[in-house]
Amino acid sequence: MDVMNLSDLAKTRGEWLRGNGPHSDIVISSRVRLARNLAGYPFLTKCSEQQRLDVQDLVVAGVNGTDLAGKYHFVRLDEASTLDRLLLVERQLISRNHAEAEGPRGVAVAADETVTIMVNEEDHLRMQVLLSGLRLKEAWSRINSLDDQLEQRLEFAFHEQFGYLTACPTNVGTGIRVSVMLHLPALRITGEIERVLRAARDMNLAIRGLYGEGTEAMGDFYQVSNQATLGRTEQEIVEEFIDEVVPKITEYEIRARELLADQKRTVLEDKVFRAMGLLKYARTMSSEETMFLLSQVRMGVHMGLLSEVTLETVNDLFLSIQPAHLQMIAGHKLDDEQRSKMRAEFVRKRLTNHQNN
Amino acid sequence: MDVMNLSDLAKTRGEWLRGNGPHSDIVISSRVRLARNLAGYPFLTKCSEQQRLDVQDLVVAGVNGTDLAGKYHFVRLDEASTLDRLLLVERQLISRNHAEAEGPRGVAVAADETVTIMVNEEDHLRMQVLLSGLRLKEAWSRINSLDDQLEQRLEFAFHEQFGYLTACPTNVGTGIRVSVMLHLPALRITGEIERVLRAARDMNLAIRGLYGEGTEAMGDFYQVSNQATLGRTEQEIVEEFIDEVVPKITEYEIRARELLADQKRTVLEDKVFRAMGLLKYARTMSSEETMFLLSQVRMGVHMGLLSEVTLETVNDLFLSIQPAHLQMIAGHKLDDEQRSKMRAEFVRKRLTNHQNN
Repeated sequence: MDVMNLSDLAKTRGEWLRGNGPHSDIVISSRVRLARNLAGYPFLTKCSEQQRLDVQDLVVAGVNGTDLAGKYHFVRLDEASTLDRLLLVERQLISRNHAEAEGPRGVAVAADETVTIMVNEEDHLRMQVLLSGLRLKEAWSRINSLDDQLEQRLEFAFHEQFGYLTACPTNVGTGIRVSVMLHLPALRITGEIERVLRAARDMNLAIRGLYGEGTEAMGDFYQVSNQATLGRTEQEIVEEFIDEVVPKITEYEIRARELLADQKRTVLEDKVFRAMGLLKYARTMSSEETMFLLSQVRMGVHMGLLSEVTLETVNDLFLSIQPAHLQMIAGHKLDDEQRSKMRAEFVRKRLTNHQNN
Repeated sequence: MDVMNLSDLAKTRGEWLRGNGPHSDIVISSRVRLARNLAGYPFLTKCSEQQRLDVQDLVVAGVNGTDLAGKYHFVRLDEASTLDRLLLVERQLISRNHAEAEGPRGVAVAADETVTIMVNEEDHLRMQVLLSGLRLKEAWSRINSLDDQLEQRLEFAFHEQFGYLTACPTNVGTGIRVSVMLHLPALRITGEIERVLRAARDMNLAIRGLYGEGTEAMGDFYQVSNQATLGRTEQEIVEEFIDEVVPKITEYEIRARELLADQKRTVLEDKVFRAMGLLKYARTMSSEETMFLLSQVRMGVHMGLLSEVTLETVNDLFLSIQPAHLQMIAGHKLDDEQRSKMRAEFVRKRLTNHQNN
């Protein structure tokens, strides 16, 4: 199996950040993941190092029996550098926990980055399909097919009554987690975001930041996902998301954008253009600030207020300005201060070049 | 006597804002004013309307006997519109108090705006010479000559022991107030401004904002002036300013700029360029914010960090973005919101046009 050249990743972007899927003005990406464990092996907290290695070998052999064979890379995270692991987190390919854990563990990444299988994260397998825009049905059908193919080679821990067994009880049953990454900048400007997030939590949804569990909302991105998987079919969970959850929340954002455009046009334009001005002129910028400024520019482009930059450039920047990506682009390590300086320069050049094209 | 066409003023700028005098990187302007009262008339608090009119007529007749004759306009403030009066305040030609007072009062303004004589402000006469840069000696010599010329036609209230008599005891004696307008942006960035202002107050100096008494520091502009005039000659007061006060305070600002340039270059450049970015992109801006942003740009130009704009443009903008000037330029009244919008548009166009030249 090839060792993935991670520094090449920094120059491209995952499919999910293309921003050209359905409803991509608000729905950045759709993700479905399944948690599975191998029968005959203890859950990871009880696994010996040898057992973890065995699990890893079995999973890799299993993946080689699916249609991913030859079209994926396997990265051994216990052998990868901190920077490489952070790069995978920034690309939404692995969780922060998986990056920071210890012991034999890895991730299989499809060449187009739409499919990943984390090995020895919280469960033996955590497979995800991640697609740009609102494409949960496609994501579900693809992960379902991958799951079926893997199950022909691997025996998953399964209980007749409870369903798939997982390390954490909240995942027992289908082991499914469905989520969408939403971009909700107008709700922050109108001050309604907290109310909407509360309503979402009342719908028994989990709200997280850009990098999942325990992370803050950056750049007005919110990952909304189902909480419990027991007692309902995968189909039901996916459909509830498509028919109820996503329309309800996006509707709030749409209304907030309309309100701003109709009644507070100057305020709206001012925010969008100031963000653009700062991005084009600042000499040092934290990733957090940059994300928020890009967020407002992204909204401005979608709302037709700003034409001097394309969505493609903005979406690219969301990824490139992150710490590991910046360092990969630089080709060497950078401390915080150096990164903030390089980030500002990088953004400025991209936005200025774009203008000149 | 011609009635001054005040709307024409909005299109030009006073000599003091040319920003090309000596040490103009820090010393915006130099001002010397003398307070005088006519013998035989009570101080203004006791004057009848007729007496105020008499004083005004006497002063105008007096001015017509000086070398200002034919080269000045007299504006009757009790007949001028609120907007016209505010325009004169913004140009530093009259005090805010004089603009807002009641009863017969006016101001004689030399065509180049370097000399003004307020009539019936706190004293019967308040004459000022206002020049760009550090030119206190010239200002003193010009106002001294004007005073001598006026004294040939007018009898000023004078006491052998105390000197010139004025409405407020702090002005008794020479009736002189010497002041410089300083631009101290680096001291605010380094956080030393309060300490420096305290030191200046300990030197028995008064520190005021852009529009004199009771106004806040806007755009990092500070008006520094002497407090008491009794017991010292005009010459001594002017020389102390030139030899001690100005060098001491400007030295702090120079050191702060050097420190920023040497040790915090990125922070400095970031502030300057962000200010430029906001000025070029914002869609609505208060005059206070605009002044502060222009202040940082002004410093950037003086320090050679920013070449896409000239000092002339920046200095012009300091004046043009103020409420009365904006409305004069627009040709009609504007409410707060309209002004903020027009201000942003005006600044953007000026800075963009400049770049294209």
